[in-house]
Amino acid sequence: MQFDLSLDELAAYRYDGEPEPSDFDAFWSRTLAEAASVPVAASFTPYDALLRTVDVFDVTFAGFGGDPIKGWLILPADRSGPLPTIVEYIGYGGGRGEPLEWLAYASAGYAHFVMDTRGQGSTWRTGDTPDPGASGPAVPGYVTRGILDPDDYYYRRLYVDAYRAVDAAAAHPSVDASRIAVTGRSQGGALSVAVGGLRHDIAAAIPHVPFLSAFRRAVQITDANPYAEIVRWCATHRTKAEQAFATLAYFDGTSFASRATCFGSFSVALMDPICPPSTVYAAHNVWAGFREIAVWPFNDHDGGGPEDQIRTIKVLRELFG
Amino acid sequence: MQFDLSLDELAAYRYDGEPEPSDFDAFWSRTLAEAASVPVAASFTPYDALLRTVDVFDVTFAGFGGDPIKGWLILPADRSGPLPTIVEYIGYGGGRGEPLEWLAYASAGYAHFVMDTRGQGSTWRTGDTPDPGASGPAVPGYVTRGILDPDDYYYRRLYVDAYRAVDAAAAHPSVDASRIAVTGRSQGGALSVAVGGLRHDIAAAIPHVPFLSAFRRAVQITDANPYAEIVRWCATHRTKAEQAFATLAYFDGTSFASRATCFGSFSVALMDPICPPSTVYAAHNVWAGFREIAVWPFNDHDGGGPEDQIRTIKVLRELFG
Amino acid sequence: MQFDLSLDELAAYRYDGEPEPSDFDAFWSRTLAEAASVPVAASFTPYDALLRTVDVFDVTFAGFGGDPIKGWLILPADRSGPLPTIVEYIGYGGGRGEPLEWLAYASAGYAHFVMDTRGQGSTWRTGDTPDPGASGPAVPGYVTRGILDPDDYYYRRLYVDAYRAVDAAAAHPSVDASRIAVTGRSQGGALSVAVGGLRHDIAAAIPHVPFLSAFRRAVQITDANPYAEIVRWCATHRTKAEQAFATLAYFDGTSFASRATCFGSFSVALMDPICPPSTVYAAHNVWAGFREIAVWPFNDHDGGGPEDQIRTIKVLRELFG
Amino acid sequence: MQFDLSLDELAAYRYDGEPEPSDFDAFWSRTLAEAASVPVAASFTPYDALLRTVDVFDVTFAGFGGDPIKGWLILPADRSGPLPTIVEYIGYGGGRGEPLEWLAYASAGYAHFVMDTRGQGSTWRTGDTPDPGASGPAVPGYVTRGILDPDDYYYRRLYVDAYRAVDAAAAHPSVDASRIAVTGRSQGGALSVAVGGLRHDIAAAIPHVPFLSAFRRAVQITDANPYAEIVRWCATHRTKAEQAFATLAYFDGTSFASRATCFGSFSVALMDPICPPSTVYAAHNVWAGFREIAVWPFNDHDGGGPEDQIRTIKVLRELFG
Amino acid sequence: MQFDLSLDELAAYRYDGEPEPSDFDAFWSRTLAEAASVPVAASFTPYDALLRTVDVFDVTFAGFGGDPIKGWLILPADRSGPLPTIVEYIGYGGGRGEPLEWLAYASAGYAHFVMDTRGQGSTWRTGDTPDPGASGPAVPGYVTRGILDPDDYYYRRLYVDAYRAVDAAAAHPSVDASRIAVTGRSQGGALSVAVGGLRHDIAAAIPHVPFLSAFRRAVQITDANPYAEIVRWCATHRTKAEQAFATLAYFDGTSFASRATCFGSFSVALMDPICPPSTVYAAHNVWAGFREIAVWPFNDHDGGGPEDQIRTIKVLRELFG
Amino acid sequence: MQFDLSLDELAAYRYDGEPEPSDFDAFWSRTLAEAASVPVAASFTPYDALLRTVDVFDVTFAGFGGDPIKGWLILPADRSGPLPTIVEYIGYGGGRGEPLEWLAYASAGYAHFVMDTRGQGSTWRTGDTPDPGASGPAVPGYVTRGILDPDDYYYRRLYVDAYRAVDAAAAHPSVDASRIAVTGRSQGGALSVAVGGLRHDIAAAIPHVPFLSAFRRAVQITDANPYAEIVRWCATHRTKAEQAFATLAYFDGTSFASRATCFGSFSVALMDPICPPSTVYAAHNVWAGFREIAVWPFNDHDGGGPEDQIRTIKVLRELFG
Repeated sequence: MQFDLSLDELAAYRYDGEPEPSDFDAFWSRTLAEAASVPVAASFTPYDALLRTVDVFDVTFAGFGGDPIKGWLILPADRSGPLPTIVEYIGYGGGRGEPLEWLAYASAGYAHFVMDTRGQGSTWRTGDTPDPGASGPAVPGYVTRGILDPDDYYYRRLYVDAYRAVDAAAAHPSVDASRIAVTGRSQGGALSVAVGGLRHDIAAAIPHVPFLSAFRRAVQITDANPYAEIVRWCATHRTKAEQAFATLAYFDGTSFASRATCFGSFSVALMDPICPPSTVYAAHNVWAGFREIAVWPFNDHDGGGPEDQIRTIKVLRELFG
Repeated sequence: MQFDLSLDELAAYRYDGEPEPSDFDAFWSRTLAEAASVPVAASFTPYDALLRTVDVFDVTFAGFGGDPIKGWLILPADRSGPLPTIVEYIGYGGGRGEPLEWLAYASAGYAHFVMDTRGQGSTWRTGDTPDPGASGPAVPGYVTRGILDPDDYYYRRLYVDAYRAVDAAAAHPSVDASRIAVTGRSQGGALSVAVGGLRHDIAAAIPHVPFLSAFRRAVQITDANPYAEIVRWCATHRTKAEQAFATLAYFDGTSFASRATCFGSFSVALMDPICPPSTVYAAHNVWAGFREIAVWPFNDHDGGGPEDQIRTIKVLRELFG
Repeated sequence: MQFDLSLDELAAYRYDGEPEPSDFDAFWSRTLAEAASVPVAASFTPYDALLRTVDVFDVTFAGFGGDPIKGWLILPADRSGPLPTIVEYIGYGGGRGEPLEWLAYASAGYAHFVMDTRGQGSTWRTGDTPDPGASGPAVPGYVTRGILDPDDYYYRRLYVDAYRAVDAAAAHPSVDASRIAVTGRSQGGALSVAVGGLRHDIAAAIPHVPFLSAFRRAVQITDANPYAEIVRWCATHRTKAEQAFATLAYFDGTSFASRATCFGSFSVALMDPICPPSTVYAAHNVWAGFREIAVWPFNDHDGGGPEDQIRTIKVLRELFG
Repeated sequence: MQFDLSLDELAAYRYDGEPEPSDFDAFWSRTLAEAASVPVAASFTPYDALLRTVDVFDVTFAGFGGDPIKGWLILPADRSGPLPTIVEYIGYGGGRGEPLEWLAYASAGYAHFVMDTRGQGSTWRTGDTPDPGASGPAVPGYVTRGILDPDDYYYRRLYVDAYRAVDAAAAHPSVDASRIAVTGRSQGGALSVAVGGLRHDIAAAIPHVPFLSAFRRAVQITDANPYAEIVRWCATHRTKAEQAFATLAYFDGTSFASRATCFGSFSVALMDPICPPSTVYAAHNVWAGFREIAVWPFNDHDGGGPEDQIRTIKVLRELFG
Repeated sequence: MQFDLSLDELAAYRYDGEPEPSDFDAFWSRTLAEAASVPVAASFTPYDALLRTVDVFDVTFAGFGGDPIKGWLILPADRSGPLPTIVEYIGYGGGRGEPLEWLAYASAGYAHFVMDTRGQGSTWRTGDTPDPGASGPAVPGYVTRGILDPDDYYYRRLYVDAYRAVDAAAAHPSVDASRIAVTGRSQGGALSVAVGGLRHDIAAAIPHVPFLSAFRRAVQITDANPYAEIVRWCATHRTKAEQAFATLAYFDGTSFASRATCFGSFSVALMDPICPPSTVYAAHNVWAGFREIAVWPFNDHDGGGPEDQIRTIKVLRELFG
Repeated sequence: MQFDLSLDELAAYRYDGEPEPSDFDAFWSRTLAEAASVPVAASFTPYDALLRTVDVFDVTFAGFGGDPIKGWLILPADRSGPLPTIVEYIGYGGGRGEPLEWLAYASAGYAHFVMDTRGQGSTWRTGDTPDPGASGPAVPGYVTRGILDPDDYYYRRLYVDAYRAVDAAAAHPSVDASRIAVTGRSQGGALSVAVGGLRHDIAAAIPHVPFLSAFRRAVQITDANPYAEIVRWCATHRTKAEQAFATLAYFDGTSFASRATCFGSFSVALMDPICPPSTVYAAHNVWAGFREIAVWPFNDHDGGGPEDQIRTIKVLRELFG
């Protein structure tokens, strides 16, 4: 069911649910500067994943607060010289899982860096990275952790991890730091948008059905988790809802999109109740670099499925050969 | 539907799903000793809850790791001398809420200490207490936080908070430290069982439909959360399930019950899918002090509802007058 | 999800789904006059609820048709002279339950009269009052009982009970008949609205997320019970639907609201599918006395929860000191 | 899913959940005697149902308390002399509906008397008969109305209606009073069992998937309504559950079955959660007349559907030609 | 809930979701011509359905591709001369079942021909007719079988069966070929619309809550099966969705309706998620013969239930006497 | 929830729900002989899947009745000489999808042949293979297609396709015909079991959570599809259920397992409602070759997920190096 705006309305949609905080840039400059005081210090340990066409490395790097963040680096076994690289972030609740779950991009000839998600990786794919950050009262899930203060908010830590994952990838000799794109689905798409807005040294962000955008609208038009976790939090903490939205404003994809300079290649699904199409268009429509959007009219949060992967490879081919 | 054992089988039920860790007592001695290095340091600030028949105090005390834990102390306004006292713990996801949600026991003439739950208090009743503990990959919720190591497990922190809440209550001049009982529903019942097993200076534990007991059986016979969060965790981290159960064994209500010396007054609901009756009987049947159990044959997790409160007051009357 | 009108639209909303019956006032004059032929004859029997800060009375009074209606009167134990009083009505399916479920208002220093609901009190809180009225073919529930004729309709009996509950309360020497407010949630809110429209001797009506208003719109925009019981009835009795709505028009909160003279302090929840916000605003917007409305943007039918109770006490403080 | 006993266990099953009240026969003798003080006084008004192969009469007769009970009498248009007759009762929530919904038995050559159900007929098929009996606090539905006292219980009134429907049918000149069978599905099956136990002048009872038997077991093994309404009532009125079951014991199909003398032709569905197979066998296995049971292994509460009707016609053919 | 357009909007609604294929008429001319190469060759075998007021015949005729299609012909036993006749088609998943399930129209004095549905008749009423057509990859169900090519599409076969069922009925001597109407519910209504558009020798089409109309809108506004099967197909075959809709355009009720010349008597239910009202009005509003529509405001896909049958008989009475 | 037998009971479980047809071997000999009259005639067309580490071929071969069956052959790009090969079958509703969805086994160094499933491939992964077989009345889905006759049954066609897929794979020069294993999940596991029983030239069958085994027990203990489709069919075609089970007996995994000679490496999930563990053990426990079974105690139908793939590679390593 297409419960959201029509396609014409989506193309014209501008989100105006929340004014951008006046210190948005200052907040992120400060945050990244603090993080930068700890070196990324990526380590790459060869990992026997029982595979022969690819080489796998078990990665650890220092993310937000210097916390050790896990990942996989997967490289075509038959390679020469630094490779164009794709950094991938993961959807809500998942983790880096096993290397054989991540074979498409390396099989297509690219270096593939998969970042684990702190504190998640337990609902549908294993993760190995704790989240040592302080946690205020929260609805089960991650999207309300620390929601009373931007400095404590869970996604401050995770956005910084994602930002630094690009540096971690670039530290490997088989990665060509001048040819890096970021991608991901849902929460992973949101991280792609955030990194696209924060970094000006990447070639592309390829977010699929991205989460974490146009919060105020999202909570009004969908009952589906994870946005509904915010509703639940506000429904319980009735007198603190506005304080929560003031925090969320520092993490809204629309603000990152309007600062992006790289190519933005989005996908959106018109029957997606989890990341409703207007919240995806909200970010896409203000993306400040070149942009495109693939529309899946009959899909829900599965979006383009394997077609999104095929499309991603085609984007990489066009950008990097 | 009575999906669990028959009443006769329940009365005879002994849980044998997990051997008790040989260092169970050592683990808890060490844990409590470490905690004891920080004074409880309870503070009581008068709080205007718009009420006249009771006096309300906003409490803060040092729980596990010295973390500040919130609570309410509610006293009959018309009182003289130290009062018999009931310390109450809260069910999964809830928090201390507002004082006017806790009027029964003070209106019955007792001092009533309500302990907030760290990190919770967002799903159905507000809480004000963060959980600063480190958090490994976890299923949304609290019962799998830190499940890979007993030292990191969420309930290590919460059980210690609950233990020390008794000391915090006892620190108020209107509380008679020699006449304290503990109670709670569901998770709050589990905390009552744990405190009943760890402390030998309380008069009674009055757990209603307690959670966190007979884990191995619980996950086999119910699909309902929160036990199902453990299943989800094990379903994702397929190769680490036994490690998780090894952790849980340090927190199983059956082990605490078998060490209890005070009076144990349980309630159980025979149609309860959330805390299945056999898991409640598993703790009750090994309770080492005097014990009784109120059976609600037609209820699910609501148990005895207001009848449980009435029964609690009657227990207090019998014990304390 | 905010499935109903936007906040701006709600503020301006006027219900026009049904013309008011031309004999609306005549119908209620006749109904109340008939009822008045039997004295209210309230009796107050002291009741041992195991409580010390309050005194509890088991009340019986003659409601519609002289039927005996139960209730509780709860008074602060430490009182002097007649008290300002709040009369409370109960939500759909509930009953008066136990006195310890009703402690907030007496603990705040007011007399609190809780009216039981005839024929209900079995789904979620016990009741003790039969409904001896004749019952035509009805969907399980109460909202279609007798729906083919206003004289036979269930709510004719219940509205009269609610009207007379004020007289019953006023009959107690500790109640100050000149300082009475009425309140309730959902169905209890609807009764507050009706009494607010029928009586001009009360100081305030404080309906929380009230039910039974703007019937024609309600059944079009929600699938949730109890409004859906009306849909089910009309779906079965396909040829009698208009006759049913002709009955409902005598019981619509919008008609009572437009006749009110006392202060009306409403609450509404913007994600409430049970009493959709436009049906609440339909009554609020035509309330003929002074009025205000508390908006809970993220709540469903729980509305303001304890915040609604706090707000109610504040209204009483302002009105009565 | 076959959630109940195995077929072998079902064949041997004896219900022992409740001792039969010692005054069971006295209760029903008194009840029927009281009812008999009002003549049945059936009236038969020709009704234009737009049909040509059958003649339809709109029936009214005096049921319990003399209350007017509606029904249809449907006769083959081409008939001669009094006909063998089937009296049919209706499932929970339904009513007599329209004559064209009841054509099978008259088309097969029999007189067909359909009794409306007091107070029901609104959930899935229209009814036209009120239930003027007093109603204590009840869960929405009918099975808990008046459950605190056998004299007030809803099914006392309905069983008497069903008993007298046979007399009402017999009053029509086209009905051969010596060749009458009773039938019905679910609640209608329960009424067939009750009439089969109370009357010794009928030729057969043909209950399909009958309801209202082996109450204590039913509420333990199913979560489905209407049995679950009893659970809900007991879950709310926690302290009165045994009083409710004491009432139900006067209405249990097993007690009526053991008093039956006519032929009993049952059907049962092994995947029926609404009328679980063991509760049907509980009545069948003690049926004191000749008996048979058709088993539908893969059906739920739809039972044999049209095959049950075909089977019913075959039974009538065998009995009456 | 009335989730679709308002009644005023429905009355004015014109579907513009899909241009009609330019070769629509050519496609159907060719299809019917090919089918006509095999004679209908209806056979009528007397069938003992245990009934006396009607005579039943087991019918077989050659449908699409000469495939044998089953049916029932039911005639009043007491008849003289050829009768006005109603041909009925069946809803999604059902089959012809047993004759005693189809007694209303013959009891009203008409010949009644019930066509079985190829490949269906297993979900809720038995069928006896295979579907030997080739089947491409399809979502479980029938509405996506062969959806990649109009020539392979399941409904090409079924529409031809329905067309020829009229010829089959007319072949019986008790059927008056000049007085035939077609009817059906849901899928049966869709077949009535199609036959109404393809044949100009019938007197009326009486579709109740018809399916298979305004496909593009249907899939956008409802999540309910069977339309949702199309969504599922397109969600999986992401790159072939437009090809599927190109096929569906040959089967859209709106195109058939605009070619109809007979009387069209529709019914629609305003809360019907399965055949949403705007999709029904889409066909009704362009029906080129005289037309009327019965509106059931409170019903979902049950529509008018027995009232639809009564209305159908009244239409037959008016047309045929 | 572990709703099925305990682990001890599972290990000892023998299915006795259905006697094996006496002509089971004759049926399959005849079926395979008939099929063998058409050559497999596999064609391998290079396919540009945008991948570099593997070579992909689009395969077509002649399955049952000579129908063209699609597949993928995926080979490591860097290979020398014929490779050990794994033939994979797909779960219910899915199809061969895109090559990049099948990279694990080729990346591990093996030839990987993926067989498309006739008529499916539309619910969750695209397929490209029609099912031209005749289709009797069926419940939506595939498991009841042609269920009235073993010769017409859908799985007769699909089992033959699966049998011949091994020959098709072996026809490629990069495939070492002496080192072939078969695998699959759910329906794919069932096909592995069937091929394991029918062919004696393969090295191993590696079925994960296999479907289609111990039918009679399966339908009694689970409500989940696809087994529930059989229940639905039998519930509708009430009088033909035994005929359906007589057909199913020719396709029961337990009969194939008892004829197997190769290594059988199963997996099973103890909380799997779709392929309940006892039905998996029913096949495993009679597997006539060497056998092993991996048990996932906390998983439902996802079974071992990526761990099953890792385990499969380990089996291949052990068998083939």
